[in-house]
This record gives sequence, C-alpha cells and structure tokens, in this order.
Amino acid sequence: MTETVSPLAPTSFPEMPDIKGVRLATAEAGIKYKNRTDVLLASLSPGTTVAGVFTKSKCPSAPVDWCRQQLGGGVARGLLVNSGNANAFTGKTGVETVRLSAEIAARALDCSPSEIFLASTGVIGEPLDARKFEDPLHGMSGRMTTSWLDAARAIMTTDTFPKIATASVEIDGVMVHINGIAKGAGMIAPDMATMLSFIFTDAPVSSAVLQSALSREVENSFNAVTVDSDTSTSDTVLVFATGAARQSGLEPIDTVEDPRADGLLLALRDVMQDLAQQIARDGEGARKFVEVQVEGAETDLSAKKIALSIANSPLVKTAFAGEDANWGRVVMAVGKAGEPADRDRLAIWFGDVRVAVNGARDPGYSEEAASEVMKQAEIVLRVDLGLGSGSFRVWTCDLTKEYVAINGDYRS
Amino acid sequence: MTETVSPLAPTSFPEMPDIKGVRLATAEAGIKYKNRTDVLLASLSPGTTVAGVFTKSKCPSAPVDWCRQQLGGGVARGLLVNSGNANAFTGKTGVETVRLSAEIAARALDCSPSEIFLASTGVIGEPLDARKFEDPLHGMSGRMTTSWLDAARAIMTTDTFPKIATASVEIDGVMVHINGIAKGAGMIAPDMATMLSFIFTDAPVSSAVLQSALSREVENSFNAVTVDSDTSTSDTVLVFATGAARQSGLEPIDTVEDPRADGLLLALRDVMQDLAQQIARDGEGARKFVEVQVEGAETDLSAKKIALSIANSPLVKTAFAGEDANWGRVVMAVGKAGEPADRDRLAIWFGDVRVAVNGARDPGYSEEAASEVMKQAEIVLRVDLGLGSGSFRVWTCDLTKEYVAINGDYRS
Repeated sequence: MTETVSPLAPTSFPEMPDIKGVRLATAEAGIKYKNRTDVLLASLSPGTTVAGVFTKSKCPSAPVDWCRQQLGGGVARGLLVNSGNANAFTGKTGVETVRLSAEIAARALDCSPSEIFLASTGVIGEPLDARKFEDPLHGMSGRMTTSWLDAARAIMTTDTFPKIATASVEIDGVMVHINGIAKGAGMIAPDMATMLSFIFTDAPVSSAVLQSALSREVENSFNAVTVDSDTSTSDTVLVFATGAARQSGLEPIDTVEDPRADGLLLALRDVMQDLAQQIARDGEGARKFVEVQVEGAETDLSAKKIALSIANSPLVKTAFAGEDANWGRVVMAVGKAGEPADRDRLAIWFGDVRVAVNGARDPGYSEEAASEVMKQAEIVLRVDLGLGSGSFRVWTCDLTKEYVAINGDYRS
Repeated sequence: MTETVSPLAPTSFPEMPDIKGVRLATAEAGIKYKNRTDVLLASLSPGTTVAGVFTKSKCPSAPVDWCRQQLGGGVARGLLVNSGNANAFTGKTGVETVRLSAEIAARALDCSPSEIFLASTGVIGEPLDARKFEDPLHGMSGRMTTSWLDAARAIMTTDTFPKIATASVEIDGVMVHINGIAKGAGMIAPDMATMLSFIFTDAPVSSAVLQSALSREVENSFNAVTVDSDTSTSDTVLVFATGAARQSGLEPIDTVEDPRADGLLLALRDVMQDLAQQIARDGEGARKFVEVQVEGAETDLSAKKIALSIANSPLVKTAFAGEDANWGRVVMAVGKAGEPADRDRLAIWFGDVRVAVNGARDPGYSEEAASEVMKQAEIVLRVDLGLGSGSFRVWTCDLTKEYVAINGDYRS
C-alpha cells in the first residue's frame, strides 16, 4: 500500500544490545505477502517468565484466547508471530490452528506447546493454515541469528517502518537490558490489523512482578495511543524475562515490594512509551504527531476520557491535517466527553500559544502565532479544565485524505 | 464550500400545508454569509405550547442555556434562528447576546422576551452582535410570508440542501398537520455547526404531552443519526403546537393517557425520522446512506451502543466509501463496543447477503454478491448477535476524502 515511510518516523534506529537467553529468527512462509518475511520465532531460555495484556475486544482472536490461557503458567520458552493473517473470527478452525501452530513451534524449540506464545496479524475471517509454519520452522532453532530490526520487520503489515526500542538500567551493580519491538499503523490497517508488541529483558524477575509492572505501564503507553478509536481483535503486549542477568550475580526480583523493581519499571516505561509513540507516528496517512495533554480534571480517569474524546474526534483530527488552530472543535470534544467540565473555566493552548481562557477566546489571541504552531510536524495541544488535579496525556496523529485512501481505496 | 448537492438528497420536496398560528419570515442580516438569508423568525399565535430537547454537551451554547431556561414556562410566541455564528463559547458576551436578541424579537412580535426561543449555528468562539438583528426584525411581523423551503434555507450552514418534512393525521374527524425543518450536514460543519430542527403543529396539545412525545421519538430519530460521532454544543430540537385546530372543533389533548395522543405521536415520528434521515443523507462528503440494524442484543440499549460503535467506526465508514464488503471491520466494531457479544453466535448481512454466521465466514459467501450490494447508494448493514431480543437502528453515511477536504482544507 503505502510505499513511502511516514514523515514522522524516527530519523535513526537505536543500537540494540543482546538480551541473553533470547534468540530470534525470521522466515518467509508466504502467508499473504510475497518476497518478504512474515514469521518471527523467538527462542527463550528455560526459566523465562512472562506477563501479558490483551485487547479488551469482546471478539478477540484465537491467538489472544490461547495466550490468555497459557499466561497462567507464568513461563515461556517460545514466541511465534506471523503477519498477513490475524486468525481472528475463524471459528473452530482458528482454535485448531493455534493448537497446531504451538505444537509445530514446540517441536522446533524442544519444549511443551503450553510454553509457546502466539500472535497473528493481518486479514481477518480468512482461515490460517498452520501447516505453512512447518517448513520454515523446521530446523529454525539452528539458524537463530536475526537482528532486532529484522524481527520488527517480519511482523509489519501496513507499518511504514519497523519499531524497536531499548533501555538499560543498573541494578545491584549489574546492567540489565530491555529490548522491545512493536507493529501497528495506529491499531488499524486495511483488514483491521493489530497493535502487537513484544518486550524482552534479561532481568531475573518473577512473572507476578512482571505482570504488575506491565499492567501499570500499559496505561500511559499503549493505552494512551490512538489513531482512529478502532480497537483491534488482536492487540497483544507480551513481556518476557529470561533471568540471564542472574549469571552476573543479580538476585531475582520476586515481589513488587522489592525496591529494585522500581528501576526496572522505569526502564520498561521508557521502552513502552517509545514504542507507543512510534505507533502514533506511523498512524495511517499521518502527517502530524499530536500530544494531547489534559489537566485540571476532577480525576485522572476523567482526564483520560476527555483526552481520548479530543484525540479521537474526526473534526479535531482534520483540523490538525488542515493546520487550522480550530479550538472551537476542542471545546466541542471536551463537551461531548460527558465528563465534568465547566465551560467558563476552560483554557486551551496550541503549543505555547493560549487560544482560549475563561470560557472565551483569549483576549490576546493571535491567529498568526497559533497558525505558526499548527505548521509544525509535532504539536502539543493542552487543555486545562480548572476543576481539580486529574491529568492524562494521549498521543495521536491527524486525519488526512491519505487515511481514507489507505482504508477506502484498498480492496483486501 | 461544497457547491454541489449531495447525491443522496431527496429527488423532490413535499408540498407543505399551512400550519395555522405559524407565520414565517427570513432576512439577510449579514452575520457571516453574503447574498443569502441567515435569519429566520417564526411568529406563533397566543397559547402555543412548546417542548424541546438539547445537546448533551457539557459545554452548551448560550442559546441552548436560554431555551432550557424558558422551557419551564411551556409557552412560546416566537422563534429566532440565525446561521453563520453559533454564539457558543462566547462567555458573558454570549449571555448578553441572547438576552438582547430575545428583547429585539419580543419587540417585533409584541410579546415577552421569555416567550422567545433562540437558536444559533455557525462559527463558534466569535462574539455574535445582537444588534445585527435589529434592522432585519424591525417591522418583520408585517412581512411574514416566507415558504417553509425558504425557512429551511435560511438556517443552513454547510448543508447542501434544505430539509423539510410534513405529516398529517385525522383526530376526531379533524385533520391536523405537522411541518418540520432541520439543518445539519451530519451534526458537524467547518466550525462545528449544529443539528437544529424546528417542528410546528396546529394540534391543540399541552406542553407536557408534547414533551413526552418529543422525548420518546427523539431516541429513534435525531439520536439515531451519526455522521462522525462529534456532538455539537448547540443541538436543538423544538416542537411548537399552536392549537389552531381547536377552531375546527378539536378538543385539547392534555394528558399522555389521552388515546388521541397516539396518532399525533405517529405523525410526529414520521416527520422526525424523515428529517433525521435527511441529515445523514447530507453528511459531509457522503456518497452512501447506510442503515445499521443491530438485533439479538441483550437489551435495546446494548444494541444501540453496538450500532453506534459500528456507525462511528472510521474503518467501517471508509470500507463503505471503498465499496468493500469488509465484514471483519464490523466484527471489530462489535467487539470494541464493550457490550455483551459472543463471537461464535454473530451473523452479519450486507443487504440480503449473509457474509458471516456462527463466528466465521458464511460457508456460502459470495464476494461478488456482497460487492454488488456495496455498489448501491443506499445500503442496509444488519448484525444479529444471537443473544436476546434487544434491537436498534442507526442511520449514517460513509467517510470519504471529501469529508477530510471539507473539514481539513477549509480555514474558517
């Protein structure tokens, strides 16, 4: 579809350190795309712990059901991801496919199928033939030398660039690393593709601590990104901790009360927020990256609802596309959120330019100054409700004709 | 902006009967537009009852605040509507404007300002100078001979055609009439214009009965239309009953228990649903009129939330624009609604073509047959959840590049 890379893409990719205990391989299984990789297999050393969060959709994909089921065990030996087919809304066939896929991956990695985690992204409603994994995965464990960038490339659908991020933190004198990859052109794609992210660390950390950190940080990272308000059937974030840093003398972090968990949490936050931003930057047709900051709300939850109401409003998003400092539409989006708001206390800024205050246009309003802000590729929109101390921040992008072209012109 | 009439516009306008007790006039006040009418004044005979419903926005416009306040009286002598400026988010100035506007209209119609109802639509955040009404309204009561079509034209903003509807019903041998006008290019417009509708009848009916009928019927008419999920600050529906049919011997309908209220309610429903459909047909950039029917939900409310989730989904709307029978996106929209749904009981139809059943693609699915349906200008999308007997129907339109052009290219 889109041949060109998003103008909002990062200008360079970070150097990714090795994560001991993680090995990666990619292959071409020909699921839908030609002449590109579409399968990622990650091998995880014995003792790897795992945590996950998934779509809130009431119609989740078969791989999401599978992962939820296996997560109870808290351990993982492998991750199999494919692009080109989401294995969603495929009925009993889809359930059989995940069972068979896990068996094939388990044979390749010499572990139990219940230790295999699965994710699929792409067309929905099409049966996915698990046997397509057999040849590519056969003997794959002997060829696991793929780069993180190649791993991120194998899981792309309408993404215009691969998404990788890394962070390191010293704990008890031992440097531990966190690497993450993600895909998603804004949670959406021609056939309702998905937001997927897989994060790996060598920190020795229990699945309970990992789950607690992930559940906490997802709120301000992946759950704070929106391109078009459409939630996929397949959204999946998995974090794997191989514990390999234990070989350097690091004692395991087994409880959330362990103060060393904080450092790890901050590093995890860096990786997750970095990847989440990249997804908004690769929003379909996006030409503007917009950070919506809502403050002065009664509660953080109220601020979140208002921030999402603004970030999802087609009128606000088209105003950004048109470089129009149309704060009236922001007022509309605040008003329609249904959350406590007092028109006469509302203040709105585009960048540093205050355009509205006390429920009316700012007396010192300069159309020229506001227009200057709107011409930027990255814009901060700030709203102060003047009611309390609740706040939230959402990342999004503009709504362009290119978005309609990608999703309307294309026939799957 | 848009010079051409929506291809979904009605092919002819209905003959509108006179409503005794109602006189209309329009004028050019030069509020924003040049060389077109932008003010509508309706004179209502003494004893006219009134009912209203308004935007649920937490940031309503000054005229909405005014109408809510006056509605308690239950009587009306005049209606003043202007296009070109919404008088929304205008602070204390806006409050002063509605007070002054009501005074000017009251002078023209020789009544009390509290008997004047007001509505404004157009740019928001710009002060509206009430003195602009003085000259046009001066002596206007002597020139009140405007047609219903002209009345509907005077309140248009980005609408591509005026919206009028009529229905008649015989009660106790007396024919009573209901005429309505509306504006709204899908609840939205370049400066977040509004959905406005004004309905007039000569039936002798108390304001309590009128309010009960209006509140009940608005749910399946104006509250069942969406173009882009953006709720305006100014949405207003007012119904006026002059009671002039009493002169033909019709006894007043004073309680909702009066069985004669039912006939009136059905006629009111016809007018409201007709006008609501016209709004979706004039959705900005619309090329397809879509009726979303959800049935088999646990409750009607649940069906409504799912129907709106489908009708507001940018991915579903762009699929209609692309004539793509992409039922996977419908599954996605059902799933994201957060309402009870069982993936494996879901069935989906485009027109008469069942595309999905029992949580998977219909075994007899024909891409060709589905594509044929998608080429039509009017499409019914039906979803059966298979859970209960809750149902709801929403009217909407597709999301086209023209929508983005209208709202993104245009600088107010």
